[in-house]
Amino acid sequence: MKVGYVQLEPRFGEVEGNINRALSLMEDNDADLFVLPELFNTGYIFTSRKELDELAEEIPQGKTAKALAKFSQRRGISLVAGIAERSQEGLFNSAILVSPSGVKGVYRKVHLFSQEKRFFSPGKEGFAVWDVGGVKIGLMVCFDWIFPEVARILALKGAEVICHPANLVLPWCPEAMVTRAVENRVFVVTANRIGREKRGGRELRFTGESQIVAPGGKILLRASPDREEVGIADIEPSISKDKAVTGENDLFSDRRPDLYHQLVGR
Amino acid sequence: MKVGYVQLEPRFGEVEGNINRALSLMEDNDADLFVLPELFNTGYIFTSRKELDELAEEIPQGKTAKALAKFSQRRGISLVAGIAERSQEGLFNSAILVSPSGVKGVYRKVHLFSQEKRFFSPGKEGFAVWDVGGVKIGLMVCFDWIFPEVARILALKGAEVICHPANLVLPWCPEAMVTRAVENRVFVVTANRIGREKRGGRELRFTGESQIVAPGGKILLRASPDREEVGIADIEPSISKDKAVTGENDLFSDRRPDLYHQLVGR
Repeated sequence: MKVGYVQLEPRFGEVEGNINRALSLMEDNDADLFVLPELFNTGYIFTSRKELDELAEEIPQGKTAKALAKFSQRRGISLVAGIAERSQEGLFNSAILVSPSGVKGVYRKVHLFSQEKRFFSPGKEGFAVWDVGGVKIGLMVCFDWIFPEVARILALKGAEVICHPANLVLPWCPEAMVTRAVENRVFVVTANRIGREKRGGRELRFTGESQIVAPGGKILLRASPDREEVGIADIEPSISKDKAVTGENDLFSDRRPDLYHQLVGR
Repeated sequence: MKVGYVQLEPRFGEVEGNINRALSLMEDNDADLFVLPELFNTGYIFTSRKELDELAEEIPQGKTAKALAKFSQRRGISLVAGIAERSQEGLFNSAILVSPSGVKGVYRKVHLFSQEKRFFSPGKEGFAVWDVGGVKIGLMVCFDWIFPEVARILALKGAEVICHPANLVLPWCPEAMVTRAVENRVFVVTANRIGREKRGGRELRFTGESQIVAPGGKILLRASPDREEVGIADIEPSISKDKAVTGENDLFSDRRPDLYHQLVGR
């Protein structure tokens, strides 16, 4: 299976241009599953709830989901992408999983970063894994990386490939995602954005370095910090099913959930 | 507060020599809390349960605990050390916390590595934190590093400094402990051993690189891979109490234990 990240520099508010740029980069490359960054179609720094509400889209009726679904169907491939979601329950920083048959899954970011909290609601549905052509795909978004619970839960639910759209500004995520791949023995595809965004008195620089990490922590590919680029790796997802670190250690059967109750205490 | 690791090369079975070597290295240095490696007094590769039983010691009556307690009292400092524990409940790969008033805490390693499972029993008491002079100390041993649950639980219980005796043979731990310090915002002191051990048809090379990492992931000190050495850092443990990553993100209050039930499921 060929999986790829699409590292982009979205322009704030230029939804159609951003979609076209993403499609164009994917058109020129060949993979079974592409991962796009968080909020790839809208850009990141919203300055009002009204602005977010106007740019957010319904899933699957919105134009971004429709454009991705059309591309996915035509090419016979799957996509994961971060988009702002408008729904009756609120506005969410979501990732969608699109397969040739349409939108297959939606994950609403649980752990919102910084000023995202002003306008987005946190997801309350938790973490899920979907089957795409026999491969179990888990979704998480950006700042979820710092909570080890997220990748752990996705892996416990059977995720073989964790797809991780991101708009990173802190420096530690690439190495932390290696740890996630070591401790859970899963593939991790992080698709980060690049460039600067300056809006409403804030300026952020996004760090690129999108990457694909194999179970056990080998970095298969890591992108530049500052260029738009696509990276594709040929992987065998089912090796994620083997949680053995030594002949005597299986990372999942060695867990001691009877001693972990503190993790769900209040 | 000055915390230090003591990176040693224990000689298998030479308990008195190993104790004296450790005391000598600590005598020549000045810290409030020293961390020694896992099984620092016995060496690592036991070839029979009988051999382990003979070298294991009761806590606090055994000679190692007594020697450490005496040193601790004389110098007015605290120590963490990995030793093989013999008790009525079995044989454990334990870490002890010794303060000038005596043995303050014992942690029995929960996640046993490789052939440790042949002769040691896993701890069933779970993870604990002790107060030493107003500083909260958490203990974990070696392979516990790969289970994010362990450092997480210690931090949730209030650990400001996690002391981590180790006999590492896999390569990923130093970077993973940086992730532990980032995701939990605690200090982590890993005291690893060095050298090779060849016994009973097995040969292991231990990787050194003991380290002290600050909340947020800064590596304050990292030792060589192959020399006996002591490293001491002057730290302010109470900064561990602040779990803020941004003005809007506190790593602990941002957690969503209501969505984490999978972690304790069976």
